[in-house]
Amino acid sequence: MRIRNYLFQKLKAIVKLYGYEEYDGPLIESLDIYRAKTGEEIVGKQIYSFVDKGNREVAIRPEMTPTVARMVAARMRDLPKPIRWFSIPNLWRYEQPGHGRLREHWQLNVDLFGVKDTKAELEILDLSCNILLGFGAKLGDFKVKISHRKILDAFLQRVLKSNPTQSLEIAKILDKKAKIEEDEFEALVKKVFPSQDDIIKHIETFLKLTKSDIIKVDWLDKEIKEEVQSLLDYLEKADLLQFIELDLSIVRGFDYYTGFIFEIFDTNPENRRSLYGGGRYDNLIGIFSNEELSGIGFGLGDVTLLNFLKSHSLLPSMPCETQVFIPLFDSNSISLQQQIAKHIRTLGISVETGLIESKLAKVLTYAEKKQFLFVILIGEIELQKNEVQIKTMSNRTQESIPVSEIGHYLKNKLNQ
Amino acid sequence: MRIRNYLFQKLKAIVKLYGYEEYDGPLIESLDIYRAKTGEEIVGKQIYSFVDKGNREVAIRPEMTPTVARMVAARMRDLPKPIRWFSIPNLWRYEQPGHGRLREHWQLNVDLFGVKDTKAELEILDLSCNILLGFGAKLGDFKVKISHRKILDAFLQRVLKSNPTQSLEIAKILDKKAKIEEDEFEALVKKVFPSQDDIIKHIETFLKLTKSDIIKVDWLDKEIKEEVQSLLDYLEKADLLQFIELDLSIVRGFDYYTGFIFEIFDTNPENRRSLYGGGRYDNLIGIFSNEELSGIGFGLGDVTLLNFLKSHSLLPSMPCETQVFIPLFDSNSISLQQQIAKHIRTLGISVETGLIESKLAKVLTYAEKKQFLFVILIGEIELQKNEVQIKTMSNRTQESIPVSEIGHYLKNKLNQ
Repeated sequence: MRIRNYLFQKLKAIVKLYGYEEYDGPLIESLDIYRAKTGEEIVGKQIYSFVDKGNREVAIRPEMTPTVARMVAARMRDLPKPIRWFSIPNLWRYEQPGHGRLREHWQLNVDLFGVKDTKAELEILDLSCNILLGFGAKLGDFKVKISHRKILDAFLQRVLKSNPTQSLEIAKILDKKAKIEEDEFEALVKKVFPSQDDIIKHIETFLKLTKSDIIKVDWLDKEIKEEVQSLLDYLEKADLLQFIELDLSIVRGFDYYTGFIFEIFDTNPENRRSLYGGGRYDNLIGIFSNEELSGIGFGLGDVTLLNFLKSHSLLPSMPCETQVFIPLFDSNSISLQQQIAKHIRTLGISVETGLIESKLAKVLTYAEKKQFLFVILIGEIELQKNEVQIKTMSNRTQESIPVSEIGHYLKNKLNQ
Repeated sequence: MRIRNYLFQKLKAIVKLYGYEEYDGPLIESLDIYRAKTGEEIVGKQIYSFVDKGNREVAIRPEMTPTVARMVAARMRDLPKPIRWFSIPNLWRYEQPGHGRLREHWQLNVDLFGVKDTKAELEILDLSCNILLGFGAKLGDFKVKISHRKILDAFLQRVLKSNPTQSLEIAKILDKKAKIEEDEFEALVKKVFPSQDDIIKHIETFLKLTKSDIIKVDWLDKEIKEEVQSLLDYLEKADLLQFIELDLSIVRGFDYYTGFIFEIFDTNPENRRSLYGGGRYDNLIGIFSNEELSGIGFGLGDVTLLNFLKSHSLLPSMPCETQVFIPLFDSNSISLQQQIAKHIRTLGISVETGLIESKLAKVLTYAEKKQFLFVILIGEIELQKNEVQIKTMSNRTQESIPVSEIGHYLKNKLNQ
């Protein structure tokens, strides 16, 4: 829980620096909203769906994007644009738990609605990098790869001459290319294009295209070339090209993307996997509204983030947060114990009071285990003198302090 | 969302001052753990239960107590005692939504395990009061009523001579007494005890017993009398009797309580209802473990808390959290805009950048709507001089500031 709180607090702080506002949606949604736009696999096998007592087909949210689209569509006219929203929902998928994949997980979702041009991509990519940098990652620890859905579409239609069904199939195969063997990849492609022998060669050539190649190919519209050029210019000016590169093998599993897509990879050889990604979706709101609103966003899972931080030793130690312990040696001192605790708490200092009478040795063992910073000892002699002993746990020093001075003493010590 | 964050942050801060540590459990639990100890109504009609794809009967948690009992039981030997845990889970109940009751709601759950005597009650009651005081409530805004499950049991068995079925029925009727008419109450009681005419009179007498009466009645064990006396003594010494009173009409719906129970009421005539409550449960862990561990805790719902704060005008206004806005008048200034934003964010100041080129009038309308504190204007002339205009929105003053001084200027202004 301490780790989760650390992750979430830092994530929230970073996205808030960019002016994003937090939202949340209901845990349960109508199953239909996932049927509308999500990949088939999720609605088929992986979703936690059931019929509720009101006979509605509902599902525990497996992802947040349909929810945010529904919410934005409902308030589109009232909300000042652009809309910058984020959330860290818990999501459920019925799948085999494994490395980086759990049935219940949390995901930072960041979305920017209402900016059509590549300045939106600039901000989202900048923010994406700054999340990892904010956790202490350095240049070289991760790599952002960007592509554009329309480059893939043009290649499929104009170079491979594929029909819509073939395009969908090839996109799926490309999406899992990195996870399968070359042989299997070729076999899958040949299944989709049985009669064309040079198809693999075309695909290999396509995947190797660099940013300067892309500007030159004859099968891509000028408009898309300009979009790519404009984003690359912005990224260069913002000093972000050190983190980001064009890579046409990036596809992204979900089919609602319509423009730039991106994925961030861990470069650690032991954890070389996709950390998170996102892209632009121009038609998503359209499911819920007659109006159009362009959006771009990404999702970052807690498990993959944690794996990244661990693999780069970026997770700090997180001791118990309680600062002071006041044990109870004798029931008679409970009034004073409670009175001191009450006073210290008004100063914003956290205090655990011992509620079971204990001996000093046991108290100190417990205090060490719980990593308190200070222990306030109320002994019999001190009780008579209206004094306490305050032990500083870091160096085991101990001082006699009048009861009236305790708050002042602790404040000073904590500010050192 | 801003309101929810405000409530949760404050709740967390207050319980952490007492040394409580945050935990969370899974959203979905086996249905059995609710069958074991929860009131029948919840498992029957109100629970969101379904059979998952692995053929398990599961439920979206309707309450947190069985979960925390399961978790504590599993780690009982490792955890240093006493165990102070809290959580703010979202809970689901299938019921008619209404004032203070929603299908999805959040609930602060606070539990203290491992302290058998009334010092635990003292801490939990102290904390319960300090939550409302921490939100700005004053003496008289709320009233804490305490009772003891064993006083009710002794009365039912020894005075009314009721059998276990009758005891359970009467407890349920007492629990809803405040919400029903006197006639209905009497009719319900007579149904349970058809042959005893004086039963209503006995109950009325019982409900009017004060703390000094309780010590004197002959049907109550000495041990319980001492417990009541000891808690009242502690509460008096801790200056808490101004908030807390003994009231034997308090029953609490769930049947796992075994000792002291309490409920906190709003005293506002327009919202005179139970805000939250809790009590001691000695056997709860026993469902999951052979060992015993006494616990005491309470749950506070977000909706009832919010109703309380609203009815006492204790909810502060919560403007947008983003501090600075840098609009874009001309695409040419995007480099400088991004560079300034980047610098300010490193100082922990939140900045929204305009990504759509806009005119000044529109920019200022938007800035007012979003309640930014400062707007940084990059005009053509300023761009040449490497300067910006910073507008302070609260008083509409505007100053020319060199780009290199922006961070310093804003830091100073924000610290004023």
